[in-house]
Amino acid sequence: MERGLAFGDGVFRTLRMENGQPVWWQEQLAKLEVDAHRLGLDMPPSSLWEQDIAWLAVRMPNAVVKLTLTRGPGPRGYRLPDLVFPTRIAMATPLPDFPDPASKTGARLRVCDLRLGHQPALAGVKHLNRLENVLARMEWDDPDIDEGLLLDGEGNLVSGVMSNLFVRHSGIWHTPLLDRCGVAGVTRGRLLHLLEAEEARITLPDVLAADALFLSNSLIRLRWVSALGERCWHRPPDYDVILERLCSEG
Amino acid sequence: MERGLAFGDGVFRTLRMENGQPVWWQEQLAKLEVDAHRLGLDMPPSSLWEQDIAWLAVRMPNAVVKLTLTRGPGPRGYRLPDLVFPTRIAMATPLPDFPDPASKTGARLRVCDLRLGHQPALAGVKHLNRLENVLARMEWDDPDIDEGLLLDGEGNLVSGVMSNLFVRHSGIWHTPLLDRCGVAGVTRGRLLHLLEAEEARITLPDVLAADALFLSNSLIRLRWVSALGERCWHRPPDYDVILERLCSEG
Repeated sequence: MERGLAFGDGVFRTLRMENGQPVWWQEQLAKLEVDAHRLGLDMPPSSLWEQDIAWLAVRMPNAVVKLTLTRGPGPRGYRLPDLVFPTRIAMATPLPDFPDPASKTGARLRVCDLRLGHQPALAGVKHLNRLENVLARMEWDDPDIDEGLLLDGEGNLVSGVMSNLFVRHSGIWHTPLLDRCGVAGVTRGRLLHLLEAEEARITLPDVLAADALFLSNSLIRLRWVSALGERCWHRPPDYDVILERLCSEG
Repeated sequence: MERGLAFGDGVFRTLRMENGQPVWWQEQLAKLEVDAHRLGLDMPPSSLWEQDIAWLAVRMPNAVVKLTLTRGPGPRGYRLPDLVFPTRIAMATPLPDFPDPASKTGARLRVCDLRLGHQPALAGVKHLNRLENVLARMEWDDPDIDEGLLLDGEGNLVSGVMSNLFVRHSGIWHTPLLDRCGVAGVTRGRLLHLLEAEEARITLPDVLAADALFLSNSLIRLRWVSALGERCWHRPPDYDVILERLCSEG
């Protein structure tokens, strides 16, 4: 009867726990609340989430933490139950061998065939309806490809399958506007500020014409892109400074 | 770790069980398989589903049966697990007080504000990413409204929140083309054949100009529409014949 399973009726966050501390915790919590409200879902008190985190922190102080909030159980059918008892799931898994963001090796990308649909009512929200990402991730199995770019039906860049994108043209950083699809995550928010980036419509030709390209998400933080098909980029000289500034902010 | 919950990575069917017999069983099973394949998911053997049904039939011979098939458990992340062990869920709930399809009272509709996004890769499939339906169903609480119409971003009729639609113009039945969104269910398939209906792009003005309007799904089967806002329709004289033919086919 769990609506999270029946309909994907919920939201989630994935974040790093380092030495028992959830990274960028207040922002992660705030984003979870904003997303919950987009679905008309009440946010449980922070203290409950913090109890979950504390419980996990003792057992796995360095971990990927995933927090899920769903509409909870309900009778069959789309209509909301008269009383909503949200389900709260907090899960820790070992930090995998993520590529070192400071690596001399950049990420290699492909362009996915799947085009994201437009749904302004859900744009920006990290909800549990993620079949588009699943289908896009099924398109490649080559371990040399680190990420797939997702375009929308009009050919605008939206994001990577697992990350957001920052694109530099003549020294100005841009990132896709996420008003019709995509997930506006916490790391993207930080980078928008840090890079003084602008949200814009970005096409694939714009990407190929860029002088630098970065991936971001809350787990890898930041990664520079070395190749998209035939197009190659060098490691930007200011990359380490940007990475340092991103990771040093509390 | 269940991908059905994490991503809505799965498909489902909702059907009637009458006197211990699942209605239109072969078609339901075939549709579940087609939908599973659209997600690259193998269909468990029919015999397994039939064991589930037999188990439920003894306990609740008249029921709504819901069958769910997911990609099963997997490590965190969109990438498919190396070995997929699908999760199979078979659930029976009591048949609620559905409106009698033969009722002299027709269904009253509204138009939902939410517009469905286009995603051809998932169009027609009854998958577990149903947040659009949830959000649309949240738009009204008036018990006098039986169903909400869903349009796409271009203003084309797609379906009801819980049903499909058939619209008659000058004696010819039409139903929305579901090549970009919507769920192409079993009852819709039967009615397409029975009414010799054509799939077409149908706008809201087309709906208002129709001389009759029917809803369908596997639970209510068929229902005539009496009102959409100010626009009213009479019970079509041939409605009972159509209903009889729909329900009598094995």
